[in-house]
This record gives sequence, structure tokens and C-alpha cells, in this order.
Amino acid sequence: MISSPSPLPVAIEPERDRHLVAAVEEAGGVVVPLEQARALVWIGEPAEFPVLGEQIEWVALKTAGIEAFRAAGVIDDRRIWTNASGFYAAGCAEHALALLLAGLRQIGTSVVLGWNDDVIPPAVRTLRGATVTIVGAGGIGRELTPRLSACGAWVVAVNRSGTPVDGAVRTVTPDLLDDVLAETDHVVFAAPATADTRHLIDDRTLALLKPHSWVVNVARGSLIDQAALGRALTEGRIAGAALDVTDPEPPPHDDPLWSLPNLIVTPHIANPAPGLTREMAPWLAENVRRFAAGEQLISVVDPAREY
Amino acid sequence: MISSPSPLPVAIEPERDRHLVAAVEEAGGVVVPLEQARALVWIGEPAEFPVLGEQIEWVALKTAGIEAFRAAGVIDDRRIWTNASGFYAAGCAEHALALLLAGLRQIGTSVVLGWNDDVIPPAVRTLRGATVTIVGAGGIGRELTPRLSACGAWVVAVNRSGTPVDGAVRTVTPDLLDDVLAETDHVVFAAPATADTRHLIDDRTLALLKPHSWVVNVARGSLIDQAALGRALTEGRIAGAALDVTDPEPPPHDDPLWSLPNLIVTPHIANPAPGLTREMAPWLAENVRRFAAGEQLISVVDPAREY
Repeated sequence: MISSPSPLPVAIEPERDRHLVAAVEEAGGVVVPLEQARALVWIGEPAEFPVLGEQIEWVALKTAGIEAFRAAGVIDDRRIWTNASGFYAAGCAEHALALLLAGLRQIGTSVVLGWNDDVIPPAVRTLRGATVTIVGAGGIGRELTPRLSACGAWVVAVNRSGTPVDGAVRTVTPDLLDDVLAETDHVVFAAPATADTRHLIDDRTLALLKPHSWVVNVARGSLIDQAALGRALTEGRIAGAALDVTDPEPPPHDDPLWSLPNLIVTPHIANPAPGLTREMAPWLAENVRRFAAGEQLISVVDPAREY
Repeated sequence: MISSPSPLPVAIEPERDRHLVAAVEEAGGVVVPLEQARALVWIGEPAEFPVLGEQIEWVALKTAGIEAFRAAGVIDDRRIWTNASGFYAAGCAEHALALLLAGLRQIGTSVVLGWNDDVIPPAVRTLRGATVTIVGAGGIGRELTPRLSACGAWVVAVNRSGTPVDGAVRTVTPDLLDDVLAETDHVVFAAPATADTRHLIDDRTLALLKPHSWVVNVARGSLIDQAALGRALTEGRIAGAALDVTDPEPPPHDDPLWSLPNLIVTPHIANPAPGLTREMAPWLAENVRRFAAGEQLISVVDPAREY
């Protein structure tokens, strides 16, 4: 007779969220204080991150972008770190689709201008037959591609490895970014914030886009040079931009961006904090099961990269 | 040797739109003055509709809803009439998806309130796992269902015939509308304007919906009792409404609807007039080909119904 394995001891800090407690227990783990744990689920801020004992083998963070945790110096190479990219992707993809459609279908303009028969109807565009480039096509790109395809769009994916994205008509590596931007109708940014992705959209790359192009960002504000974007929007060199992330967040109240009718800004809500742990729960359960079984975890942070 | 058939003579009035001329010619027809034509493509208003000679066997109208043409008394039973439902469906479906996502993802509220961390994040909802009922699921429903499914929603279709809609988890006839409204998360109206569909949404049916429900209308304003909708929105009995059509259009400037942050109104742009004939062209070419070949046309108006 084989004895059943002892349950994996997991700490959930700084508070024991009920969705996550249920997930850990569902996966055969047990929730314990930090000093008794082999794994830590941290749902607090970087500044409050605790000093970890050597017995902590795995830390699960609740954000997809972890640059704030890196900046706070909490990420080390003495254990496994996972981020939230494994369960953020679907929400980000849905929000990206919502933003792109809100732009193309003139929903932001309609909210600002009211019933307007002169400006709005000629500006309406459709996803049918449009080419949409996803820059940083990893998990979000895999979720976004079938949504865009169902709307009749052609997807071009850009990612670091060039690994083909199912459903995309073409997947290319970042060295071909200029070429695909020059051919695309619209572009969605879903790349992590790294030195390589800073200001991917600037005066030069904006000049590659078209007067009917919409730019969507659900990743990090640093990917876009906002001053350059504001100039392109003001001068009508592109049709519009729809941003869930800005640099800084929130933008200053007197930022001239706010007055542009062809700019849509949502307050970083692709995966809003209320409901976050409910979204995180099934992912955590799967990773607890994998950790206990000695299997590879989902969304492991690569210490050799910036994400 | 078989002589080639003489080309079908088609009038395009009141002006010879270049997209439609090209479509007629591509399909083997020839564009002629009205008195020489066997078919009329009418892209003008009902009030300007010409007196037709008996030689006109088919009239193609450019709108999906033809109640204005009926009211003007121009539709008779001496020839075939087609409406635009055959090529409006995809645009309406895309706009319906855009409106529903704009509601769920709080895009309208974000445009109105700016960056707001208190009100907006808790109100964000997702299509993933949500049930969406399409009322009047014909052509638009067939286009909308795969778009919603790609976003992870469950579709319930309601149509007069009960003909199952591919991809819907359930298709029911209108006598079961109350039952499905009581079970749904959100509802999209895509039904024609008839006596049966007037004020489908009123105080009674609004009471069947949920505090997180969004109501979308891309059909006709008359389907909704706007005063009842305004009360439900003001009192928070439903989450919001997103309307591309109102009753009347446009709504009066002093309509209290305009001040509701959880109401999104777009100015009847699911298929905006600019670009309309470009959308109509491939459909017209197909119907010209069918007419010349003696085949059944697409989108024939049924004189026994109101649409």
C-alpha cells in the first residue's frame, strides 16, 4: 500500500483570499503560515514583499509584468518565480478586441460627440478584411488571434522566437517589425516592458502606419512614446489609439492626450483587481498540482530575460 | 454554337454609384436608364421613389429594414423586392459585438469619467462564460454567433421559425423569450421592426434581467421602450445599454438618456452610408447573376410579413 503524499504547504499573503485558498485545497495543498510554507502566493505590492526563508521553493506573483518586483529587488535566483501571464492572457485579449472595435466602430467618438451624422459615419471601419499585427504575440496573441479571425481579420504575429501562432497568416521575428507595420491596417501591442520594447511606437514607426490605422496597447505604457503618439493623433496621421496602459499611470490631469477625440483610454482594466483572484484560482490550482507532482510550472519567469 | 444571352438591363437610381455599376457589369449586366431596365437598384430615399413601369421585374433596396418604404406605399406585389439583409448582417454583427464589449469592458464609462480607479474596475465584466441571447437571430445572428463564441460566450438564439443557429447552444421560438431572458446574462436585439417586436424591452421584460446585464440594440429603436430602459438604467436594475438605434432618431438633445453614464449610443452606424455601396456591390453582383440565370434571389421581401 502506497502512503498518500503529504499535502503541499502553501502560504497566501498578505491576506488569505478565499478564491485562492479554495484553489490550493482543491489541488491537494494546504494553506499555512509563511514560515511553514514551501510555496508563497503573493497578492500584495512589491514594497511589502516579505523576506523569504530558504524553504520557499516557489513564489507565485499576481501580475503579468513583473518589472516593479524586479525594481524592488525581491526577485532572486534561489527559487522558482511564476508570473500571471498564464491567466491574464484571455482578459487582455478580450480587452484588446474591445478597444480595437471601439476605435473602428467610433464608439469613443460617439460618446464624446453624441449623435453626429457628419463626422462619425465616414470614420467607421470594419475588421472584415483588415490586417491586424500583434506585436509580442505570446499568450495574449494566442487568445486574440481566434477572436480577430472570427471577425474576418487577417492576423500577423510578431514574437521573439518566431514560433508560428495558430491562425495567424504570418508570424515574424522583431527584426521584421518595420516591414509588417508598413503593410498592416492596425496594430495591437501585447509585449512585455523591456529595454527592447521601449518606445516601439515613436515618430519613425508611426510614419509607417496609415491614416485609417488604429493603435491598441494592452501591455505597458512604456512601449509607446506618448508625445509622438499625441502628435500623430492631432495631425490625423493615424486614425486613433486605444490604450489600457499609459506612461505614467494615471496620465496627469492636464495631459493634452485627454482632449483628443480619437484617443480612448481605459484605466488599466484588462484584468481589473476586483475579480483578479477569481481569475487566478484555476491557474493556481493547476500550478499547485504540477509543483506537487514535480512537473514544469506554467508561466515561469526566465531570470535571463527581463520578463 | 449557343448565342450568348443578352445582358440584363439594370437601372441604378437616383445616381449611378460606381461600385454598383462595376458590380452589375461584373455580373454580366448592363446599366441603362430606368425606362429601359428590367431591374432597379434604388439607393435613394422612399419619398423620391419613382413610378415604375410594368417592365421592372425586380427592385433592390439598400436598407435592411424597409418599413419606411412600406409606409411610403411604394412596395407592391407586381414584382420582386429585395432588401439589404443579405449584406448588412456582417456589419451589424460586428457593431453589436463592439457595443457589447464596450459595455462590458467599461469603455464608454472610461471615456466619460477618465482614469477612475474606484468606479470602473469593479464594473468590468467579461464575455468568457457569459450567456448572450440574440433576439431575432437570422442573418445577423448567424454572423454574431461565431464572434461571440470566439470570445468564450454561450449563445442562445431566438427566432420566429426556431431554426437552429449553428454554434448556438440553444435556439428557441419567441414564445419562450421570457424564459431565456430570465436565464441570460446579456441580450442583443437584431429583430426587424414589426408589430410583434414593438417594445419587446419594457418594464416587465427588464425585470427579468440581472444587475450585471447589458442590453444591445442594432435593429430598430422601436424594439425598446426607451422610457422604461431609462428608468432601469437610472435605478441600476441592469448594468447598461448600448444602442445603435433609438426612437426617434436622433434622440432629442434634451433627452435625459444622454446624461446616463451607463448608456452608449452610436448614431445608426452599424452599416454607415459612406461605404455602403462598396459593401452592397458583391451582393448585388450575385443577385444580378441569379436573376439573369432565373435563380432564387437573396433577401427577397416576403409580402406576407412586415419585413
